[in-house]
Amino acid sequence: MPPVIGVFDSGFGGLTVLRELRQALPAADYLYFGDTAHLPYGAKSVRTVAKYAISAAHFLEEHGIEMLVVACNTATALAFEDIRSAVKVPVVGVIEPGAERAAAISKTRKVVVAATEATVASHAYQRALEQRGMQATEKACPLFVPLVEEGWVEHRVTEEVAHIYMDEVFQDGARDADVLVLGCTHYPLIRPLLRRVVPQSVEIVDSAESTAAKVVELLDADRGQGAPGDLRCYATDSVEKFRRLGSKFLGCPIQKIELVDIEK
Amino acid sequence: MPPVIGVFDSGFGGLTVLRELRQALPAADYLYFGDTAHLPYGAKSVRTVAKYAISAAHFLEEHGIEMLVVACNTATALAFEDIRSAVKVPVVGVIEPGAERAAAISKTRKVVVAATEATVASHAYQRALEQRGMQATEKACPLFVPLVEEGWVEHRVTEEVAHIYMDEVFQDGARDADVLVLGCTHYPLIRPLLRRVVPQSVEIVDSAESTAAKVVELLDADRGQGAPGDLRCYATDSVEKFRRLGSKFLGCPIQKIELVDIEK
Repeated sequence: MPPVIGVFDSGFGGLTVLRELRQALPAADYLYFGDTAHLPYGAKSVRTVAKYAISAAHFLEEHGIEMLVVACNTATALAFEDIRSAVKVPVVGVIEPGAERAAAISKTRKVVVAATEATVASHAYQRALEQRGMQATEKACPLFVPLVEEGWVEHRVTEEVAHIYMDEVFQDGARDADVLVLGCTHYPLIRPLLRRVVPQSVEIVDSAESTAAKVVELLDADRGQGAPGDLRCYATDSVEKFRRLGSKFLGCPIQKIELVDIEK
Repeated sequence: MPPVIGVFDSGFGGLTVLRELRQALPAADYLYFGDTAHLPYGAKSVRTVAKYAISAAHFLEEHGIEMLVVACNTATALAFEDIRSAVKVPVVGVIEPGAERAAAISKTRKVVVAATEATVASHAYQRALEQRGMQATEKACPLFVPLVEEGWVEHRVTEEVAHIYMDEVFQDGARDADVLVLGCTHYPLIRPLLRRVVPQSVEIVDSAESTAAKVVELLDADRGQGAPGDLRCYATDSVEKFRRLGSKFLGCPIQKIELVDIEK
């Protein structure tokens, strides 16, 4: 029987992870939880993020998932252990797979991680990379998420902002870094733009891709092959907005979206 | 006895209203509630915004305020009547005072309102202005809040974004508008920049200023004069971040900040 996989994010960004998962394991059934009433997590505290993430994890567990993907860098960075101890099913975050992939391809052993303020402040990527003998420079890019949500994925303003953030880090602190990890699930949408902005010698690692690869590794991949499985989405705020914005991230229309309340 | 005034916002922006209030009524005691765990309201639904706003209003009422200022354009636009019916004290929002001021100074009877997506979608400013015989063009400027929070209040990127938003509206839809209403409490921080970007013939109305003037009109202004009153702030997320960011909006350091939880 195909697996039932739960995917959790603060909003729409995790749909880039879901998109990769559906390509790798099309027959699986997916339950996606977007905690849109509380987004963005990027500027919130550990305590607050953990509370919301655990409520969402419980909700998905009660709905029959056999694996949970925390498709949110901030929630993974701030609350991964809290989430893992709160549920019975195996939990995969986005940070370890991204760090693993970066370690596998870097020659200089120096990596830049672009992420939200909260992910950077947690230093979760730094720890994961240092454990693999890498040196990490973390760069908070708080304007990337609103620019992506404005739809300016190919826009001169976004390119200018990307230059400001990336030049700062690649010209100053991390001249010989040869990998850029996209440590936020919104960033894959501006990957082509970032490709033009960062030095050509730098490889871009998309943690959405690496996370999907990790899930395939953990599950029996054969179980995920066959006719396309079901996708149900749960949002804590406007279903209409989820449909509109979410489809951009997923790359195709979303049919089943249900409004849920996890504040009880 | 000096009045006790409650000021509510989704985050820090309402502190620009508080700043104006403290100048007008220095002796009053102020309780400021920043619902930072749920910010920003700008992209959330009516139902969600009303729920949070009412919880905050009840909290402030239980703490002894005699007037409530909803210093948040989105909450005023989406939930003003809900908030007013939920509490016993008089409630002042930010939209009516801003619209009143615009109507008082416009000669062409055409006004542009810059605001968040949710405020624009509600058309609350349009209604308030039309009731006063004005024609309103509403413009959503979703990148202004993150740019202000990034601290880029005098930055070429912010100026470029402002040009994109403002040129679109003043060169196309609203050529002969002579007033720009700042329909979001974050925008006063980029007022000098906006002054350079919009046509010189356009007057800028800051709804924070107009709201403070309205409160003075409703209260006995003499009661607010004298030695500076007390300010206590309540935040639903990180006190440290509130202290850091909030001080920029208020224009001076904030001493007393308490973490509160309104999700019960």
